[in-house]
This record gives sequence, C-alpha cells and structure tokens, in this order.
Amino acid sequence: MEKGLPARSENYSEWYNELVKKADLAENSDVRGCMIIKPYGFAIWEKMQRALDDKFKETGHSNAYFPLFIPKSYLSKEASHVEGFAKECAVITHYRLKNDENGDGLVVDPEAKLEEELIVRPTSETAIWSAYKNWIQSYRDLPILLNQWANVVRWEMRTRIFLRTSEFLWQEGHTAHATKNEAVEETSLMLDVYAKFAEEWMALPVVKGRKTANERFAGANDTLCIEALMQDGKALQAGTSHFLGQNFAKAFDVKFQTKEGKLEYVWGTSWGVSTRLMGALVMAHSDDLGLVLPPKLAPIQVVIIPIYKNDEQLDQITELINPFIKGLKSNGVSVKFDISDQRPGWKFAEYELKGVPVRVAVGMRDLEKGLIEIARRDTLSKEQQPIEGATSYITNLLDEIQDNIYQKALSFKNENTYSVDTWEDFTAQLEKGGFISAHWDGNSETEDKIKELTKATIRCIPLAAEKEEGKCILTGNPSNKRVLFAKAY
Amino acid sequence: MEKGLPARSENYSEWYNELVKKADLAENSDVRGCMIIKPYGFAIWEKMQRALDDKFKETGHSNAYFPLFIPKSYLSKEASHVEGFAKECAVITHYRLKNDENGDGLVVDPEAKLEEELIVRPTSETAIWSAYKNWIQSYRDLPILLNQWANVVRWEMRTRIFLRTSEFLWQEGHTAHATKNEAVEETSLMLDVYAKFAEEWMALPVVKGRKTANERFAGANDTLCIEALMQDGKALQAGTSHFLGQNFAKAFDVKFQTKEGKLEYVWGTSWGVSTRLMGALVMAHSDDLGLVLPPKLAPIQVVIIPIYKNDEQLDQITELINPFIKGLKSNGVSVKFDISDQRPGWKFAEYELKGVPVRVAVGMRDLEKGLIEIARRDTLSKEQQPIEGATSYITNLLDEIQDNIYQKALSFKNENTYSVDTWEDFTAQLEKGGFISAHWDGNSETEDKIKELTKATIRCIPLAAEKEEGKCILTGNPSNKRVLFAKAY
Repeated sequence: MEKGLPARSENYSEWYNELVKKADLAENSDVRGCMIIKPYGFAIWEKMQRALDDKFKETGHSNAYFPLFIPKSYLSKEASHVEGFAKECAVITHYRLKNDENGDGLVVDPEAKLEEELIVRPTSETAIWSAYKNWIQSYRDLPILLNQWANVVRWEMRTRIFLRTSEFLWQEGHTAHATKNEAVEETSLMLDVYAKFAEEWMALPVVKGRKTANERFAGANDTLCIEALMQDGKALQAGTSHFLGQNFAKAFDVKFQTKEGKLEYVWGTSWGVSTRLMGALVMAHSDDLGLVLPPKLAPIQVVIIPIYKNDEQLDQITELINPFIKGLKSNGVSVKFDISDQRPGWKFAEYELKGVPVRVAVGMRDLEKGLIEIARRDTLSKEQQPIEGATSYITNLLDEIQDNIYQKALSFKNENTYSVDTWEDFTAQLEKGGFISAHWDGNSETEDKIKELTKATIRCIPLAAEKEEGKCILTGNPSNKRVLFAKAY
Repeated sequence: MEKGLPARSENYSEWYNELVKKADLAENSDVRGCMIIKPYGFAIWEKMQRALDDKFKETGHSNAYFPLFIPKSYLSKEASHVEGFAKECAVITHYRLKNDENGDGLVVDPEAKLEEELIVRPTSETAIWSAYKNWIQSYRDLPILLNQWANVVRWEMRTRIFLRTSEFLWQEGHTAHATKNEAVEETSLMLDVYAKFAEEWMALPVVKGRKTANERFAGANDTLCIEALMQDGKALQAGTSHFLGQNFAKAFDVKFQTKEGKLEYVWGTSWGVSTRLMGALVMAHSDDLGLVLPPKLAPIQVVIIPIYKNDEQLDQITELINPFIKGLKSNGVSVKFDISDQRPGWKFAEYELKGVPVRVAVGMRDLEKGLIEIARRDTLSKEQQPIEGATSYITNLLDEIQDNIYQKALSFKNENTYSVDTWEDFTAQLEKGGFISAHWDGNSETEDKIKELTKATIRCIPLAAEKEEGKCILTGNPSNKRVLFAKAY
C-alpha cells in the first residue's frame, strides 16, 4: 500500500479527500465538479438506495421517471424557485455539433440552435407539476405519491467530492394531496423515514428540525431537515422534506374537484436525499486508518484472510473454512475470502482502509486448535474464537458493531452539543466546533448578521425544542426557544 | 373506462401509441422527444432492471457511475465514434441564467459561457476510457468489469415513445481486458445474458447475430445483437454487445504492462439495453384489449375482484379470501385485492388493459360453494376452481402463462421467418413483413442498394447460420450463408 492517510487532527479536510480516493469510493472527473463514483463507493450507494427505496414503497410511494431537461420557461413559473436555481444551471442551447469548415475540429452547429433553451434539471418540481396538471382532475386522483431516482445538476463554484458536486445522484419525492393537513403529515412522515434510515442504516444520529425562512427550499412554505454532526465539529444537512403549500399548484394551475364539487388547488410536498450521504457516512465514523463502515451498508461485511506458506496449506485452510463461509452466506452475510497473492499484512491494511467491519485471519496453527482470529474494525480489537459456532458469533457481532458505531456517534453528538447564553461563549465555542444551542430573536436580519460575523448558520429549529424564555445571543431581544447553530458543510 | 383501443389489424402504430398511454406506461412530455415513464410502466422497468442487474453481478460485473457531461474534445478522439454521435447531441454552452435587463424574463447569461462546450452523454465510452487510463497500469488491474445504469441523450428527429426517444434510460457495460480473446468472449457472454433475459423474463424469442459493417456501433470492430419480431412483422433490435478491439484504448492511450513486462493496449467491450425493451414487450405480446404481460415482469400478477352488494358481503368475502391472499404472497406472488368502489365490469376491463396475468373474481354464491373464478389474461379463458388449493394452482398457473406467452411468440417468429431465393419473392414477402432469410454477397454497397430499394435492412448475420452456397438476391453474386432481412423499428 502507498503511504497512509493524513491524520484527522492535522488536516481533516485533506484526510477526507484522501480517504475518499484511497478507499476507492470516488474521484474527480475531467469535467469540473462532476465525480466518478467507483465500484466500491457505488456498492455502498446501492445499499443505501435499496434500503430507502424499500421504505418509500412501504409508505405507499411508487417510482417514476421525468425528463432530464426542463424548458427555461418552466423554471420561471414559481418566483422564488427560479430565484434559487437560475444562477447555477447548465443550459442546453444547441442540439448538434459539426465539423468546422476551417478544419478547426468539432464546433457547435449554429443552425441547430434550440428555439427555447433547456435546463438540465436542478430538481424536478416544475417538470412534475406540469405533468400533474394533466393527471389530476378529481379528488379520486389524489393523493399521488411518487419518487424518482435521478441525476441532477447544480453548477457549483466550489465543489467537494460527494458533499457538493455539480452533478449528483439523488432521489426526489413529489406528492400531491387534497388537503393541507395530509401534505403536512406527508412532510413529517418522510422526515421520519430519513431520520430512521440515517440512524438505523448509516448509524448516524440526527437532529430533526425546521429550517428558518432564510434557509428554506426555494418554493417551499416549510422545510424540515435532519442535521448531523461530523467529527470535526461541523454540521451536515443530511436530508430535507418540504411542505410546498399550493405554490407549485398555483404556478402550474393544478386544481381538483373536491367530493363536494368545488375546484381547489392541490397541496404538495417534495423531499430528497443525495450522494451527499456518502460524504456524511465517511466523515461521521471513519478514522486515521481508513473507513469505518456500519455493517448494514458495508459491501463486504466479513473478509477472511488465510495465512499460509504453500498451496497445500491454502488447500487445507480452504477446506476447513468452506463450511464457515457457507454458514455466513446463508445468514445473509457478505463474505470475501481473499486468496490473492498479496501479503497478509498488506491485506490487513487494505481492508482496514476499506472499512470492512470484521476481519477473520486463519493460520495453520490456530486452525489445528480449531481457532480463528476475529478482528473488529470499529474498536480495532482482536480475539481468538473457536471456529465451531463462529458463524452465529459473527452474525451477532455485526449487529453489535452496527450498534456500537451508532452509540459512539451519538455520544460524540451529545458531548459536542453546547448550550450557550452569551455572545462571548457563542463565538468561543464556535471556534471549537459542535452544535450550539442558543436563543435567537426569530429575525432574519439577526440570522444574517450572525452568519456574517461568525460564518455560523442556524442549522434548524429542533422539533424537540421546548419552550424556554431567553434572550437572543446577538440582540438580546426576547426569544422563546433555543435553535441549533453550527458551521456547516 | 374510455373508449377502447384501435385494433392492431387496422392501425398497429396507433394501437401501440394508445396502449402505452391508456395502460399508464408512459406519455410524451413537453420537452420534444423526452418521455415521462409513469409508475405502472416504471414498475415493469424496475423488474427488468433487477433481473438484468442480478445477471450482471452473477457474471462478475460491478456498477459504477460516470459523469453526465462529456467534454466536446473527448468525443473527437475516436474518429468513427464522433461521426456516429456528433450530429445528434445536446450541447451545454452556458452555466447560468439571469434576468434580462429589458425585463424580458430569464435569459442565458453571456458571461457564463463555458470555455469548452459539454455534451450530454449519448453513450459513455469516451468518459469511461479516459478514466481507465488512470486506473489501468498493469495486468493486475485487469479485467475491469463495469456497468452503469444511466440516462443518455441522442437528439432524435423522429421520436416514438420507448422505441426512439431523445432521452432514454439504459445500462451500459464497459469492460477492459488484457487479451483479445477475453474481450471477444465477454462480448459473446453478454449477448447470451441478453438473449436469456429476453427469452426467460420478457418471453421474447430472439435471433442472436452479428451486425454487418454498415450497422456496427460507431467505434466497434464487431457488433453482436439480438433481434426480435413484432406482431406487425417488423423487426426490433433489442440489445447489442460490442467488441471494441483496441480502438478506445488507442484513442485514450490506455496501455498496460503484461506479466512479461511488455506495454500493450487494452482490449475493450461495451454492451447495452434500454427502455426500448419496454416497447418490445408491449409490441410482442399485447392484444386489442390491452397489455399482455409475462408474469415475471408484471407489477401485479394476480388481481382479486370481489363481487358484492353491500359492506356486509364484502366483509364476508374479505374474511374468506384473506388466507388465500396470504398464501399467494408467501409464495412470492404480487397480489392486489381491489375493493375500490368501481363496478366489477369496469375493473375487469381495466386489468385486462393493464395486462394483469391472472384475475380472480369472488362472488358470494361461488364462495358459499368454496369456488372462485380464475381468468387468464393470455388466453382469455375462465374456469371455476375450489378455493382450497387455489394458492398453489395459481402459483403454477403463472409459470404456465409465462411459458405460453413465450411459446406463442416463438411460433409467431418461426411462422414469420421466410427463406427466399429470388428478388421477386424477396420484395413480395417484404410487403407482408417478417424475417426474411436470404443470400447476400457480403458487399456494403449491395446492402445499401437493397435498403434504398425496399427499406429493408440486414438485421443480422445469425450466429447459427450454416454454410450454404447461394446467390445474392440482388446481384446474383456468390454467397456462402443466408442473412436475416427485415423492415425494422
């Protein structure tokens, strides 16, 4: 293996970049801001997709697919939506290239100019609500509960692999309802789905909350979010669920006839998570040796490394280890038996880097005694165990590791959430990082001012926040609940 | 339900368009040539994806993801590749919109012009081989066996839903190998995977063959394909697998060090199937009443329709039918129990239109006798069966239906494959449709001439074609095997 990773304590940002690359998760492409997700990284994303997709279907949603391109005029129909996205969109102006007459190679064919420019979708509300106009006439057509897995493009100036890329993969749910209440409930339901997924699959504790008006999705009346804390004390928005009110219904004139025969505008929601979650997964759990993957998302859950001197020994180990492998597989555990010709030490380091939750080493002497060595990636502890019964031991161990990774992240989050009451404490704590729970007067200008002074943003108004009288840390104006500040990705 | 479909015999093309729309598979969007795949259609596509993806993984492939955008200069690197795609590509020239100073709404911001235009991928060979250059140094890095599920764009002038759309969904496999032999074998292997998938899942018999030089993929040395016959006697190319030789390795300078220490260019393949398969599925099996779906790809395999006069009767039916539904589900059968307030007759027609393979009707009187009515979508036959044992009866019936749909399509294909030896018979048969097996002199100009005169193309040189001396139907020149002609989608 090449030289190791930078230490987190020395250069967290460089540690992250190097880890993503060295662990074969992804790399930057030649196209500015667009990444290549490599097979190992994509295998993790596929597991995330599968788990989320199952949850979406359990809650009654179906998948569909809408066009990649959005006519420019659509974008303009919802005023705040266009404001949010027009400045960062890829624009298609032509539909053909041709050979330059002066031999300068391939050039845009000026005769193939589009009458109306097309935008590569930054999100699909406008495409979808223009279709909903045709799909919805009566209350019988509602609700519509759709989701789409897709690529989207937002032309970012400063990009960061997985966290902020010009093209990213995501899912976007888009639902239409007959009543405000139903749409509000859907918004909460999907936030809960995201929070559960983050906690149960990604082992990532999150704070559920509401965005301030400043931080709302462009076109939403209300944006709920889940916020997570990374190891460097910065926050990361991991998913959002928007109550759209009747904004897009009005923009696209989508009305329905109620049971009572009245015409009303339809209520909407949208919600999404993206490949950004891959960045969150890496940043939340990994260490200076490499990835630490929660078993539920690990492409390889158990790697078995034989230690042998010649082919005969390898054959003996293989024969003895086969029923064990078979047992693990029949328990649904994904196993790799690595018999490549690299040295064991190289393999140990490689699978540590790749975050494989359990490593089993099998040497001749141990095997004669009926023992194997089991190493945990999360705690880096090793122990000998009888091969007899090792199948169920490891199957249980994977659950234990999943839980331990979550508990560790939860402790970290709890220990790094600070309640502060003065501006001095606020700014001092911000230097050290973490979630800061503090009073705010509810004013957008105050929020802007705090951001300007400190770079901290209000991550959310936690849904669990209790009423508490206090004074805004900046203005001293009255406040009745604490909000969560942090510097964020 | 609205009025029925046009008859296939009257207007096959209109029948297809209406069926796709009425059965809620897909519809055209406001963006020229781009379709919306609706939930029912997408559910079929998801089943196709899952089955194919499993087969790709069984044969050692992993998924990855490469950027949507391709720099214009990449496209130019492989000469015949650019020739094939430059004339139909969507070109990104700008990355921002702005509000017009004269109040004319949203316009392209001239200051946000890209230095080099980006192309929306029509296929990803160039993006992928430019990455392979960094990934491949030694024989140890080979083979690379990747697949990508993605959207691609080819700006088509005449579009047809599913069959030819400007944006479509597909998978594209891209592999890199140390030897020519290995790449050639991969090309065949993936063709076999496609053929098996078409036959076993889509119930679609195909002819495996080789494209003529004229019809090869732009950048390939050899293109293998599967060709299917639609009910109107036109052929449809359902999948292709390309042996790329060292063309892309040379274009992107991808060399590797052999075991012996020599530097050699890497060998490549690529292969793909797309949402075009949805069109093939519809056209191959459906009838004037609607879709006929092979059970393996049907989103709903069994629909149960209760026939009742009041809520009390519905409750009784529900209670008696519940264990039966549970039994089907535990056999892995997807069941819908439709208790909506539409009339039974409406429901019967609706599920016929949607191609649900098995319909079960349950009335009070039958139920008292312990009977249910089972109707098959493929044969339109009905029979009464005891509810006792109906679970396994229906589970088996689904297999029988899958097989019957395949056998029917196979007979159709065989009965509509004609061996002709004269130009008169050739042109006469072309009017009636079908696959035409005839001699050709192997000359590209002859092929062009035949196409010009008759609109028929050589679909493939069947892999199973035996040596046979004959004379070209057009020129009378000698030929040593028959090729397959047809008019095609």
